[in-house]
Amino acid sequence: MLELGDRIAVTKDGVRREGVLMPSVSGTVVIKMDSGYNAGFDPERSDVELVRKGKAPMVPPPPPLLRREGLPKVSILSTGGTIASKVDYRTGAVTSQFSAEEIISSIPELLEIANYDGRVIYNILSENMKAEYWQVLARAVGSEIEKGAEGVIVTHGTDTMTYTAAALSFMIKTPVPVVLVGSQRSSDRPSSDAAMNAISAAAVATSDIAEVTVVMHGTTSDDFALVHRGTRVRKMHTSRRDAFRSINCHPIAKVSYPDREIEVLGGHRRRGEAALEVNDGLESRCALVKYFPGAKPDLFEHYINSGYRGIVLEGTGLGHVASDWIKTIKSATDAGVPVVIASQCLRGRVCDRVYDTGRDILAAGGIEGGDTLPEVALVKLMWALANTSTVEEAKGLMKVSLAGEISSSTPTTV
Amino acid sequence: MLELGDRIAVTKDGVRREGVLMPSVSGTVVIKMDSGYNAGFDPERSDVELVRKGKAPMVPPPPPLLRREGLPKVSILSTGGTIASKVDYRTGAVTSQFSAEEIISSIPELLEIANYDGRVIYNILSENMKAEYWQVLARAVGSEIEKGAEGVIVTHGTDTMTYTAAALSFMIKTPVPVVLVGSQRSSDRPSSDAAMNAISAAAVATSDIAEVTVVMHGTTSDDFALVHRGTRVRKMHTSRRDAFRSINCHPIAKVSYPDREIEVLGGHRRRGEAALEVNDGLESRCALVKYFPGAKPDLFEHYINSGYRGIVLEGTGLGHVASDWIKTIKSATDAGVPVVIASQCLRGRVCDRVYDTGRDILAAGGIEGGDTLPEVALVKLMWALANTSTVEEAKGLMKVSLAGEISSSTPTTV
Repeated sequence: MLELGDRIAVTKDGVRREGVLMPSVSGTVVIKMDSGYNAGFDPERSDVELVRKGKAPMVPPPPPLLRREGLPKVSILSTGGTIASKVDYRTGAVTSQFSAEEIISSIPELLEIANYDGRVIYNILSENMKAEYWQVLARAVGSEIEKGAEGVIVTHGTDTMTYTAAALSFMIKTPVPVVLVGSQRSSDRPSSDAAMNAISAAAVATSDIAEVTVVMHGTTSDDFALVHRGTRVRKMHTSRRDAFRSINCHPIAKVSYPDREIEVLGGHRRRGEAALEVNDGLESRCALVKYFPGAKPDLFEHYINSGYRGIVLEGTGLGHVASDWIKTIKSATDAGVPVVIASQCLRGRVCDRVYDTGRDILAAGGIEGGDTLPEVALVKLMWALANTSTVEEAKGLMKVSLAGEISSSTPTTV
Repeated sequence: MLELGDRIAVTKDGVRREGVLMPSVSGTVVIKMDSGYNAGFDPERSDVELVRKGKAPMVPPPPPLLRREGLPKVSILSTGGTIASKVDYRTGAVTSQFSAEEIISSIPELLEIANYDGRVIYNILSENMKAEYWQVLARAVGSEIEKGAEGVIVTHGTDTMTYTAAALSFMIKTPVPVVLVGSQRSSDRPSSDAAMNAISAAAVATSDIAEVTVVMHGTTSDDFALVHRGTRVRKMHTSRRDAFRSINCHPIAKVSYPDREIEVLGGHRRRGEAALEVNDGLESRCALVKYFPGAKPDLFEHYINSGYRGIVLEGTGLGHVASDWIKTIKSATDAGVPVVIASQCLRGRVCDRVYDTGRDILAAGGIEGGDTLPEVALVKLMWALANTSTVEEAKGLMKVSLAGEISSSTPTTV
C-alpha cells in the first residue's frame, strides 16, 4: 500500500521516473521529482512501483487559519502550477503546500485582507489542462459561491491560465469576483512574483469587480498588478513577470503595491449585479487552426473526418486565407461545422468586408470573430456548441458578446 | 482575343466575378472588380468570357523616368498588395499602377533619393503567397543585384509580408539593402501610409543597411518609420499603420520623416560586407501547428501520412504541450520529420530545460527554437530541409542563427 511521502517509480511509455508520492484529488498519480517539479500520470496507463517507504512529513502541518472578525470570506482553489510549488527540494518532504493554509502562512499579508477557505481541485501541469478540467473547476467555483464565498481565487499555472480564464468566463455568471492568479517564478526563488500576485488577487477578490479576471504583475517591478478581463488577456512573454497583457481593451483595473489601492480603468460588472449561474457544457471537439502561406486546406477534412464540431481559423491580417481555402470553409459549413475567423495579428479586429478574399470567406459561411482573440474564440465555440440546441444558434452567439470578449469597435490605443 | 482593359467575367468553383482585365506576369488572370480590389485566377481552373471590349487606358502613360546624375540605382519589384493598388475605381481604367513609374509619379520625393528601375514580379493578394512565389522573388532580387542595383525595394501586401521577409532573409545573402514595404491603407485613401513608407524604404535602400528588412510606420503619426530585421518582425495589428513590430529584438533603425534621417539602433550587416548568394531551395511540405488545451496529437499523423517533412509546434509558455504529445513528437522525429518547438507567447524564448514537460520534449527529439518567432521557424525549417543533405544537418541549422533569427539571450526590454 503506497502512502504519501513514499518514494516511487512510475514507468510510462518506456520512460521511468522516480519521485515522492504527492497528494492529488484528480485520480492522477503525482510525484515530486528530485528536480523539484511535479509530474502527473494516469495510473491506468503507467506502472507504479515502490522504491522505498517514506518518512512521515518532515514539515509540521500549518496551524489552523486565524479568523478575524469583519473580514470577507474568500475561497482559494488550487489547480497546480508554479505558484503552488513551494517545496523542500532537498528532502523531497511532502508538505501540504497546495492548501490555502500553506499559501497564507508564507504570505502573512493575506490575513489582513480576508478569511480564507482552501480546496485543492487538482494538481496538474497547466499544459495538461483540457475541457473536462475546466468543467470540474467551474463547478467547484460555483459551489464555493453557493456556500457563501464573497470572492474566489483560483491558483493556476501560467501556460494555459488565459484559456482557463476564458472558459470560466463563459461557464460562470458570478455575483462575486473570481480571480485567477499564478506566478512566473516560484516563491522559493529570488524575485518571485508569487507574493505580490497573491496579495493583489486577494485585494481584487474582496473588491467590487464581480467578473472572472486574471491578476498578474503589470511591470517587471513590484509596483502594481493589472486586473485583466478573463476573455481579453494573453500571455505575451515566455518568462517575464509582466507577461500577461490585455489585448484589444484596457485592463479593468490596476492594484498598487504594497498599498493595494484599486484604480478602476474600465467598466466592469459590480458585486451582486448578476445571480450565480453555472453552465458547464463544453464541446471539446473544436480545433484552432493557424493559417500559414502554402498551408493546405485538407487539414479541415482531417478534422471533419475525425468528428470535430467546430473550427477557429487564425487567418492573416484582417482574417484572410488563400483562395483555395474558401471552398473548404464552405464544405465545413455545409457539413454543420462552424468556421470562425480570427487573426494571427492578435491585435485589431478581423473585417472580412474590406477585401474580396474576406467577402468570399463570408459567402462560404465563415463567421467573423470581431476582435476576439483566437484562443478565446476557440473556448467560446466549445461553449456555444454545447449550450445551444442548433448549430445556427451557436453561430449566432459567436457574433455577440457573452462575456466582454468582443466589442463593436476596438480602442485604437491598446 | 482579350486585351487589357476589357471587361471580363471569370467563373471559378461556381462563383462568377466581373471586372476589368489587368496586367499580370505570373500567368494568372487578374481582374480589377468594381469594388476596386483585384482578384487573380488560375486560367486553367477558371472559365473566362468577354463581357465587353474595353476602351484604351484612360490615363496617359507616365512620362519616362527622369534620371539624375550621381544618385544611386534602386530596383523596385512589385508583387501586389495595397501599396500598388492605386486605381481609378469609378472608371475601372487600366493604368500601369504597378510599375515603378506610376509609384514614383505619385510620390515625387522619391526622385530626390535614387534613380529607379521597376519590374512587376507578380500581382497577387498576399494571402495567396506560397513557397514557389518566394523562390521566384528571391531569384528576381538576385538578378537585380547582379545587374547593378545598389538597393532593392519589394512592394508587398501586408498580410504575409513578414513571412516573405523571412524567406528572402534565408534565401539571399545580400551586399546591398533589400527592403520590403507595403501599406495598410491604399494611397488613394485618406491617411494612407503609402507615401511615407515608400520614401522611408527608398532611404533605407540607399543606406548602409545591407540586410533584408521591412520598413513600415513606427507610430500612428507620420513622424518616423522603423526598419525591422526580416527574421524578427511580425504584423501585430490587423489595421493600424504601425502594425509591424520587431519581436525579441530592437528594430535595426528609425527613419525620421520627412527629413529621412536614419538613426541606427542596433547592429547590422554593412553594404558590401557579404557577396551575393541566392540559395532558393525551399521544402514546402512543412507545417505550423498551434497547440491548444485538449488538442489531439493525431494531427501529427495526418501530416506525416500526407508526406510532410517538418513541423513547427507552437506550444504554450516556455514551449510546452500536453504530456500525451511527447510520444507523437518522438514518432515524428523517429520518422525523420523534425519537430521544432516555438512559443505562442511570441515574446521571450522557449526553454525546455526548466520544467519536466520540456525535458521530456527534448528527450523525444523536439528541437528548441530559442527566441525565433513560430512563423519564422516554419520558413527557416523549409529552407534548412532543402539546403542540407541530411535531416540531422537541417536540425543542426535550426539551433543556430542564419539570418539574425535567433539570439543566445533575448533583451528583456523588447
